[in-house]
Amino acid sequence: MSDPADLTAVELAGLIGRGELSARELMAACAERIGRTNGRVNAIVTLDLEGAGAAAAAADERFARRGPDGPLHGLPMAHKDTHLTGGMRTTFGSPLMADHVPDSDELVVARAAAAGAIRVGKTNVPEWAAGSHTVNPVFGATHNPYRHGRSAGGSSGGAAAALATGMVPLAEGSDMGGSLRNPAAFCNVVGFRPTPGRVPSHPAQLSRQTLAVQGPLGRTVADVALLLSVLAGPDPRAPLSLSEPGSAFAPPLDAGVDGLRVAWAPDLGGRVPVDAPVARVVADAVTVLEGLGARVEPDCPDLDLADPVFTTLRAWQFLLGFGPLVDRDPDRVKATIRANVDVGRALTVSDLGLAAQRQSALHEVVVEFFERYDVLVSPTVQVEPFDVGLEYPTSVAGVRQPDYLGWMRSCTLISATGCPAVSVPAGFTAAGSPVGLQIVGAPRADRKVLEVAAAFETATGHGRRRPAP
Amino acid sequence: MSDPADLTAVELAGLIGRGELSARELMAACAERIGRTNGRVNAIVTLDLEGAGAAAAAADERFARRGPDGPLHGLPMAHKDTHLTGGMRTTFGSPLMADHVPDSDELVVARAAAAGAIRVGKTNVPEWAAGSHTVNPVFGATHNPYRHGRSAGGSSGGAAAALATGMVPLAEGSDMGGSLRNPAAFCNVVGFRPTPGRVPSHPAQLSRQTLAVQGPLGRTVADVALLLSVLAGPDPRAPLSLSEPGSAFAPPLDAGVDGLRVAWAPDLGGRVPVDAPVARVVADAVTVLEGLGARVEPDCPDLDLADPVFTTLRAWQFLLGFGPLVDRDPDRVKATIRANVDVGRALTVSDLGLAAQRQSALHEVVVEFFERYDVLVSPTVQVEPFDVGLEYPTSVAGVRQPDYLGWMRSCTLISATGCPAVSVPAGFTAAGSPVGLQIVGAPRADRKVLEVAAAFETATGHGRRRPAP
Repeated sequence: MSDPADLTAVELAGLIGRGELSARELMAACAERIGRTNGRVNAIVTLDLEGAGAAAAAADERFARRGPDGPLHGLPMAHKDTHLTGGMRTTFGSPLMADHVPDSDELVVARAAAAGAIRVGKTNVPEWAAGSHTVNPVFGATHNPYRHGRSAGGSSGGAAAALATGMVPLAEGSDMGGSLRNPAAFCNVVGFRPTPGRVPSHPAQLSRQTLAVQGPLGRTVADVALLLSVLAGPDPRAPLSLSEPGSAFAPPLDAGVDGLRVAWAPDLGGRVPVDAPVARVVADAVTVLEGLGARVEPDCPDLDLADPVFTTLRAWQFLLGFGPLVDRDPDRVKATIRANVDVGRALTVSDLGLAAQRQSALHEVVVEFFERYDVLVSPTVQVEPFDVGLEYPTSVAGVRQPDYLGWMRSCTLISATGCPAVSVPAGFTAAGSPVGLQIVGAPRADRKVLEVAAAFETATGHGRRRPAP
Repeated sequence: MSDPADLTAVELAGLIGRGELSARELMAACAERIGRTNGRVNAIVTLDLEGAGAAAAAADERFARRGPDGPLHGLPMAHKDTHLTGGMRTTFGSPLMADHVPDSDELVVARAAAAGAIRVGKTNVPEWAAGSHTVNPVFGATHNPYRHGRSAGGSSGGAAAALATGMVPLAEGSDMGGSLRNPAAFCNVVGFRPTPGRVPSHPAQLSRQTLAVQGPLGRTVADVALLLSVLAGPDPRAPLSLSEPGSAFAPPLDAGVDGLRVAWAPDLGGRVPVDAPVARVVADAVTVLEGLGARVEPDCPDLDLADPVFTTLRAWQFLLGFGPLVDRDPDRVKATIRANVDVGRALTVSDLGLAAQRQSALHEVVVEFFERYDVLVSPTVQVEPFDVGLEYPTSVAGVRQPDYLGWMRSCTLISATGCPAVSVPAGFTAAGSPVGLQIVGAPRADRKVLEVAAAFETATGHGRRRPAP
């Protein structure tokens, strides 16, 4: 057998389910990989190998008695360090929370545990998960597994890097402006931003906000679908949660793309500059999709409302979430958060009204667009992974960016729409940087998006190229 | 056969479906009733008997060829005058819109038409449907069919009065602070406020707001369920729409209440004064429910957050919806709307943040409460129908009310929770005023609420007492 740390979650679940691999053996393989790799990559920042080993042993005993706990039985999993884990340190990457140990698991963590996942530790994030480069004052930076010294992306950067290196077969993250998609693109794994409400979040201070969502990452689309099948499904405490059971998203995802209508938006309708090496790699995707029988046409919905919607709602949510923190301890909150809170303080009630009206109008725009197309494809991120010492790139394709999100507006514009979007490996630049293809579908068409990604993945195999040890 | 105008929608749909009654015969009966009653009650303010007669004839021809269009085949229906009807005047009760004729039907109207309903006309509303007493400068006041000279309630007051008098078997309305429940209570019919998203609204300026919802009214709970089965079900253009198909709410509703846990909240935990004659009538409901096998306990969720949530979000939505109108033509917008816009203008971004956080917290409160109870019951309205010349009662049970909504806080507090709620006839005061019982369920438990109402209705028969001709 190959090293279990290199197998997919779906393969591992099969082996464990058939009794051909024990949770202990798998945990040992992951522990070995973590020991060999994590020091250099810095993906998992809180690690409990002892607890995970004991949990794996207990899982094996339960399996012997009564079979699997659930679809993730015995699969090691790392949780984003902004997600509450009962009894395990949860720092949010903030010095203010460096010693914070929650009493109990939040919902996504609890659902993974109930499905049989083994909690290994916490994955690194930017401070308070703000921004898309994973570095913080508590744990430092996560490195790109393919290009040491460069960014792993973020904010679910530790999760993506841990997956790419085989430390764990599954991880979850969250995404306000690209935080599940951008690190997946930078680390050659799959990250899926679901429709808001698909993965219910609890507890949540603002349970009706739709910008930030939680979701799965994995090394393959099927692994992501497996984890989504566990994380999705309604919870009465989440008022926006969608009704379909999680099982509606389980693999296999073999619908293919033959005959599908694909809109090709290499720069989202001229709205985002893209560095040439990234653009070249992503352009090949069109040929692949056409070869699979899709009808690809250049087109993009009118996303002019997306930027004002995103920046206004983000600033408002930052004001609500971080305003009190900034007031209390401004020196221990990073500048980009303080800046967003300042933007929030300058908002008027009319600004918020306009944003809400524009969000409604933008929804109509994308619903109309996706009557004509099954999916839209674009680059996930506009740049290659940048120097790990840089907070963010200030120019893209020679164009000076107005703010710290300019280099990933390809993701933020989609966040504002409420559409589900996946990043799937699309190949590598000449310099060896992974590149992600973003596939976007109509609101609630989460499964369709994953089906297209699965067909693309099978046809190309880019995701199988793992980083050098 | 009885006069078809006196039969229920369910009975009429059965007769038409079996070919025992034609749409033309039913339309003629309703036209006769309208001619005899409407002048005095002033419920239907735009009437198209000619168009309705032609539509009924066409429906009969289609029926002969291919059977019913849908579950409402041939049923005359009146639409609230705030709901857009293509080619038919839609005034919103505002002098500014007195001659407004929309190009096309909005979604609830289109769904009713697609299900076979015959459009008879528009039902009266307060100006812009604001407030719960149906009077406006365009058409004047709607009178209570049981007590002429008194209020029919509102804002769906024309709808409730038209139903009570047998002018139409079905009508729809909308409810921000009680506008489906309060007129149902005053007019001895059934009005149902669904969970937000159950009945999708389109077009909508604010498609993610949850205070105002559209929903059905009828003379019986089964009729309301029949109409709900047509109006409910997802529409991609409504981002909050719930997934269940409308058919999930169709009658029969015969689950009964045996063994159900009922919380009895005669004054919503001391939060609302109730006039003694109303309180006495509603108290009898407890005995009825206990007699049917329910376990009734005095209890109420902590609704302290409901009032600030409702008033803040309402003022914000009024600012967005009516601010431009007030700026343009203040003299032709009524004072209570101008006052709400002023409250909206005084709001801060932090106020809106607090309201959003409180709305989230309130959701948790009710979800927890309804883990312990199937439904909560209370009076629908705190007072008897008041003088039609009064804009609103300023004191209730001897308690001076702080604002124009004080007399119906029993409804507004529930609106803020996002819970579905029905008003079902509960009997009459000594003075002859109809009284409504409000039955509230957990978010999304729309069918449960209707089932309890149906059992109560069957046991009591209060809804069968029709107004004197």
